[in-house]
Amino acid sequence: MKIDSLRYASRFDHVSGSAIREIFKVIAQPGMISFAGGNPSLAALPDAEAAEIARDVLTEKGKVILQYGATEGYAPLLETLRRWIPENLGFDVPAVLPVTGSTQAMDLLCKALINPGDRIIVENPSFLGNLQCMRLYEAELVPVELEEDGLDVNHLERLFRECRPKMLYTIPTFQNPTGRTLSLEKRKKVAELAAEYGVIVAEDDPYRDLRYRGEKLPAIKSFDQEGWVVYLGSFSKIISPGMRVGYMVGDPALIRKCTIGKQSSDLHTANLTQAIVDQFIRRGILPDHIRRISADYAAQCDTMLSCLSSFPEGVSYTQPDGGLFLWVDLPEGIDAKELLQAAIERKVAFVPGTHFYALGGHENTLRLNFSASTLPQIQQGMEVLRDLVAEAIRKL
Amino acid sequence: MKIDSLRYASRFDHVSGSAIREIFKVIAQPGMISFAGGNPSLAALPDAEAAEIARDVLTEKGKVILQYGATEGYAPLLETLRRWIPENLGFDVPAVLPVTGSTQAMDLLCKALINPGDRIIVENPSFLGNLQCMRLYEAELVPVELEEDGLDVNHLERLFRECRPKMLYTIPTFQNPTGRTLSLEKRKKVAELAAEYGVIVAEDDPYRDLRYRGEKLPAIKSFDQEGWVVYLGSFSKIISPGMRVGYMVGDPALIRKCTIGKQSSDLHTANLTQAIVDQFIRRGILPDHIRRISADYAAQCDTMLSCLSSFPEGVSYTQPDGGLFLWVDLPEGIDAKELLQAAIERKVAFVPGTHFYALGGHENTLRLNFSASTLPQIQQGMEVLRDLVAEAIRKL
Repeated sequence: MKIDSLRYASRFDHVSGSAIREIFKVIAQPGMISFAGGNPSLAALPDAEAAEIARDVLTEKGKVILQYGATEGYAPLLETLRRWIPENLGFDVPAVLPVTGSTQAMDLLCKALINPGDRIIVENPSFLGNLQCMRLYEAELVPVELEEDGLDVNHLERLFRECRPKMLYTIPTFQNPTGRTLSLEKRKKVAELAAEYGVIVAEDDPYRDLRYRGEKLPAIKSFDQEGWVVYLGSFSKIISPGMRVGYMVGDPALIRKCTIGKQSSDLHTANLTQAIVDQFIRRGILPDHIRRISADYAAQCDTMLSCLSSFPEGVSYTQPDGGLFLWVDLPEGIDAKELLQAAIERKVAFVPGTHFYALGGHENTLRLNFSASTLPQIQQGMEVLRDLVAEAIRKL
Repeated sequence: MKIDSLRYASRFDHVSGSAIREIFKVIAQPGMISFAGGNPSLAALPDAEAAEIARDVLTEKGKVILQYGATEGYAPLLETLRRWIPENLGFDVPAVLPVTGSTQAMDLLCKALINPGDRIIVENPSFLGNLQCMRLYEAELVPVELEEDGLDVNHLERLFRECRPKMLYTIPTFQNPTGRTLSLEKRKKVAELAAEYGVIVAEDDPYRDLRYRGEKLPAIKSFDQEGWVVYLGSFSKIISPGMRVGYMVGDPALIRKCTIGKQSSDLHTANLTQAIVDQFIRRGILPDHIRRISADYAAQCDTMLSCLSSFPEGVSYTQPDGGLFLWVDLPEGIDAKELLQAAIERKVAFVPGTHFYALGGHENTLRLNFSASTLPQIQQGMEVLRDLVAEAIRKL
């Protein structure tokens, strides 16, 4: 029998993701200025420190690090997280599980909670990668509208009441893709509504330490009385995404279920990468490192915003207080996918906003990343985009 | 609302795994001689080489290693695998995907292929961890009987014909838990039957390099004409399980589906651990390392077999040509779970065989691991077990 006759599982019926994958192939071309990815800048990746730490931990604890580890996590990192999270994030740690990047946290949450057809509320727009994860668990995605100060809590309450969702997925701080931040009042309200309606809140918060303006806000998790909020943390944006180390904090029974799920996902996260992250924290390297990369990113963000201020009338954009992204609304009738084709010819790339909407549409929007480009690249690339947008407006 | 009211996904309805977890808690006690796990010996873990390699790769390619990587794998490791697999395993590489331990390969295969209720043929007994993985995908597990020379191919053909399974899961070389090896003729037959009936064969082969006697056998994959066999390889037993690096080789369309599944499982395997494995191969360290650890393991295996030869009449056991495990059949009526309780009191642990049977039963069997104990520990522990078995036989 020919292998072409193989039938795949039905969870893949509505998952392709090819549009984005095509974009990422294109931006790998030499000379491309890419505002498309979400990569840290190369200058932000602490390779010298990592080299020293890797050698040290393998010299001192090599046998433990190379041996099988516990699914529950590498013991020294667990100890560190139980101290570091309350100190830095301001909430208690009922239970914590180190994971292979916070991507895995989302996968394990869906594995623990989602039956096909269960509803998940997602911000409109939201992070593409995790939307795909939810689709593979055959969840029904229900969008909640975003406002200037984060998700619309009135809309959210109506959806909680009418849709009986299993979970809300939110990125409250410097949201991907919009750069928006959920206000303090709304954070309290989300925690309240979760407990009132019995909905798990997956609080995905990888950007919170990259703040360029304003005061830090407490996590939604810090207002969680009953345990309905699961906090997803990541070291990808403040140490290294290639290391694949994140963590999830939540109710012990739910974390236990995720741990059982993780046993057959990858048994455990590599001990070596857990040990390296542990040492970055224990050695006290992180605060200065975060200050340094935030100063760089702030300059990149400001440069991009300053370029946007000279865009034609009818173009609006978010002015994020941190993170890696900002969001552009073009006049109705302009298709960002067509704009992308023209931009790629002139060696500039971004992601059309429509891909971030669970139900599509919004063709006149786009996401720009500023962390992976130098200031001259930002200026050069934004000039190209400004010209193309101006041309598209003239043609309307 | 109280979090106790949270309802988990139904895929967890029949998954507990608690029996084994309890055993592993117990064996963590100091002074315990453990034949229970599947850990490499500490002497087999190349910590000095890993420390040097980790520092080197992070010094030379730190920025690439710390940045986001491709889901498809770390480019230098891919290049190495495409050369190393044909040279060492004797089959072509239509497509290969590095994974976060071969545990993840099984998870991705199920994700790509298994709808609830789909049937998977599993050896009776088989590897516990992957049985749990299949249960979480709500597969129906159908056992195929094992003979001295591996699975019963006549039984297999009947099951292929009558059950229309989606997949066969087999560990053909030094099987976990029995230590048995599928014969050359049967390997050809399994590949033929897979193509004839259109059944994916997951060939899980982590022990093949740990051979202490006899000639290496070609993989089932090397007889695969049509692409139905997926080969799951692992570096856990020949470099380090704590590193979590394995790979899967198979049909390009199926590997592509697994790659899309991996995007939302953990995005990619840590670049650092992939780079370290790559260097172990490129630097030519592996052949000597495998020879050295195989010599040690062979002595441990022989010592355990020699101890078993003095066990009372009515006890039979496998005599594996390699791997980490052997398998003991006690006289009918003896319950290995009760034996374990008595053994633990005398500081010896093993895993009762019943846990490895998809449908349970076979209470008079047990699995012994010899790789994680020294020769004196093996002698001491086996003396305890011999006494306890003799006592249990007297009581029959």
